[in-house]
Amino acid sequence: MSAGNTPLRFDIDARSRTCAARMGRITTKHGSFDTPAFMPVGTQGTVKGLLPWDVAKTGAQIILGNTYHLMLRPGSPLIARRGGLHSFIGWPGPILTDSGGYQAFSLSNTNSIDEDGVTFKSIIDGSMVRLTPERAIEVQNELGADIIMAFDDCPPSVDPSTVNASHGEVRTARGAEKITDHNDRLEESLKRTTRWLERCARAHARPEDQSLFGIVQGGTDLERRTRSAREITAIDLSGYAIGGVAVGEGPDEIRRVVNHTAPLLPVDKPRYLMGVGYERDLLTAVRAGVDMFDCVLPTRNGRNANAFTRTGQIRLRNAKFAEDDAPIDPACGCPVCRPTEHGWATVGGQPFSRAYLRHLFHAREMLGAILVSLHNVWHFEALLLDIRRAIRDDGWSALEVAWPVLTGGDSSQLGAVPDAQV
Amino acid sequence: MSAGNTPLRFDIDARSRTCAARMGRITTKHGSFDTPAFMPVGTQGTVKGLLPWDVAKTGAQIILGNTYHLMLRPGSPLIARRGGLHSFIGWPGPILTDSGGYQAFSLSNTNSIDEDGVTFKSIIDGSMVRLTPERAIEVQNELGADIIMAFDDCPPSVDPSTVNASHGEVRTARGAEKITDHNDRLEESLKRTTRWLERCARAHARPEDQSLFGIVQGGTDLERRTRSAREITAIDLSGYAIGGVAVGEGPDEIRRVVNHTAPLLPVDKPRYLMGVGYERDLLTAVRAGVDMFDCVLPTRNGRNANAFTRTGQIRLRNAKFAEDDAPIDPACGCPVCRPTEHGWATVGGQPFSRAYLRHLFHAREMLGAILVSLHNVWHFEALLLDIRRAIRDDGWSALEVAWPVLTGGDSSQLGAVPDAQV
Repeated sequence: MSAGNTPLRFDIDARSRTCAARMGRITTKHGSFDTPAFMPVGTQGTVKGLLPWDVAKTGAQIILGNTYHLMLRPGSPLIARRGGLHSFIGWPGPILTDSGGYQAFSLSNTNSIDEDGVTFKSIIDGSMVRLTPERAIEVQNELGADIIMAFDDCPPSVDPSTVNASHGEVRTARGAEKITDHNDRLEESLKRTTRWLERCARAHARPEDQSLFGIVQGGTDLERRTRSAREITAIDLSGYAIGGVAVGEGPDEIRRVVNHTAPLLPVDKPRYLMGVGYERDLLTAVRAGVDMFDCVLPTRNGRNANAFTRTGQIRLRNAKFAEDDAPIDPACGCPVCRPTEHGWATVGGQPFSRAYLRHLFHAREMLGAILVSLHNVWHFEALLLDIRRAIRDDGWSALEVAWPVLTGGDSSQLGAVPDAQV
Repeated sequence: MSAGNTPLRFDIDARSRTCAARMGRITTKHGSFDTPAFMPVGTQGTVKGLLPWDVAKTGAQIILGNTYHLMLRPGSPLIARRGGLHSFIGWPGPILTDSGGYQAFSLSNTNSIDEDGVTFKSIIDGSMVRLTPERAIEVQNELGADIIMAFDDCPPSVDPSTVNASHGEVRTARGAEKITDHNDRLEESLKRTTRWLERCARAHARPEDQSLFGIVQGGTDLERRTRSAREITAIDLSGYAIGGVAVGEGPDEIRRVVNHTAPLLPVDKPRYLMGVGYERDLLTAVRAGVDMFDCVLPTRNGRNANAFTRTGQIRLRNAKFAEDDAPIDPACGCPVCRPTEHGWATVGGQPFSRAYLRHLFHAREMLGAILVSLHNVWHFEALLLDIRRAIRDDGWSALEVAWPVLTGGDSSQLGAVPDAQV
């Protein structure tokens, strides 16, 4: 479906009468996706462990790619010569790419920042790589995603002076940097993010194909969030994101920042909360008026045998599941929990049991990661589907009955698990 | 489909007029499969990297499970309590299990053999495990596969005295054993295999559900193969296998042994060539009258970026594929080479390119192994499908035109690649 001569159209079909939630649809040159939307993360050009048609089967209509990883390997010119990211990875629907900034700041111990951009050490070959607002947009123009993100200055999430400030110079996740005052740094970061957004907007060479979103920063300081939102939204863009959230702070802080910031963004444009998160965090943000989400939790935890259920996460490696014939989640409708409903007639209609999944993980079989990733992505997509229905019908209490994890359960109890090469 | 009160029925629908090949169908209590058949290997209860419905999509109608691995982990009693292997792994169709003997001899450096059975060291926890003909059948009765294999004495494939015979005692893949003469050992192995088969047949506790196949041994000595075939087929069973082939000898030796041995097996019962092999080996055996095959090559090589094509294997890690937009095999109809024909409409109908697959392997993404395993299993199933048509139509020359690897090409050029934990 074409969105006409603008690359992005946002249609709001329903608004909650009890909160700021809205449901609708975003249309791009590669088709549309329903909002609020959950985007599975395909860091290196693949949602880890899943065939693209299985990703689509979960209900996912848009996926995310990481500019940082793709620019380092295989490189955006190579992808451009293949016809762009959609063509290269075999995903014909909408794609969003981040700017690479977050990874440039967080994945490298060796980086330096100046007004022009960031220099960091490649995690692939150790070479020094330069990212500037112009370069980040150029790479994203080459990748060709439908929605591209501004290159922002991601400040340290904690005051680095509390970590090591003995020499007036601190080492943070961003590397060595002269910082005399953490507040000064945050202020500078805020203003720089605005200046860099202006440069991104000017550098954007494919405005007829790709929609640039700006990113509001400001950490947990609501006054800073207000100023950042004012400055960022002063630049006319197709959508706006809330960045710097879920970088270590708890659910109450996430709620406080999102509840404050979301209403500061234009009501008629998509709002994207980056990198969030657990089920309750998503619901909180939806009710504050957020439309888009991405998170690595479903696939990362899936590879590590942590399965999401409507009542919380379970660790499938645990001995207690050795002879458990139940599906991961009896309330789930995914191909793992209900294969027969998806055309795969097992003996007696049985699901892939917790016992079998436990065996696969203990035997180090890829299929364990594949099945649980498929289930986990389905879990989040099913939640968003139910959330969209709740918005349309104002059926919030029914939603919370169907998804105990939103209230009584605690899916974040197990936390995120470290990534592993599976 | 039920096979009536016998657990296996073999229907021959067509016979070649120019060779001993035949095509037909084997029916078990879990459905039927067309012959000649290629069985993907699901060692630990999963065809590595593939969802079971994708295995079925390749055309595979029967899969193989390994008794050795499953008895060690998760254990056959646990699988029996889950309703058996079909139920446990979510594969409702026919399954064949081997006896565990081959792995007991080959995977352990610490094993000893006597008239009663084999003691070996578990690769899981190092404990000593005992396998006898009775125990191998008991485990297979618990697993519940449709076709179960006799526990045979697998002799060393090479004369161990040529390796180290300084003390009248040699260390082979089977461990330390007093052998004064390799021929004596092979003779003893042959007779023991017959005695063990008689014990297997007596021990078989589920003859109404599961069909026991005997295994002919005898190495590359045709006279021994003749005697083994005579002794093994003297015991009335549902089918017979040729073992001890493709254990290191070349294609000419395989051809010589199979051409000699296959005709010695009953014409009205299934013939199974164990662990073979490359495309040309399969065709040779089919023309000698073999009906069933299994091999780990498609999935093992797939995990290591080696893809089978109609003109030979290609190594997808190679630099020359970095910008290659072609599918693995332009003549292949699989979901990787022709996604659009399988309902996944990529941009411009493009396949998953060699360039993308190369990227996935270099980025250590699971999807590389998944896609190439899927393609490779499809490759072998498509070959068998074409072979069955060639038998029906006596269309051998058309078969060789469509599959150059059967004549001019050389798929075994790259050889088998070592297994890796992917």
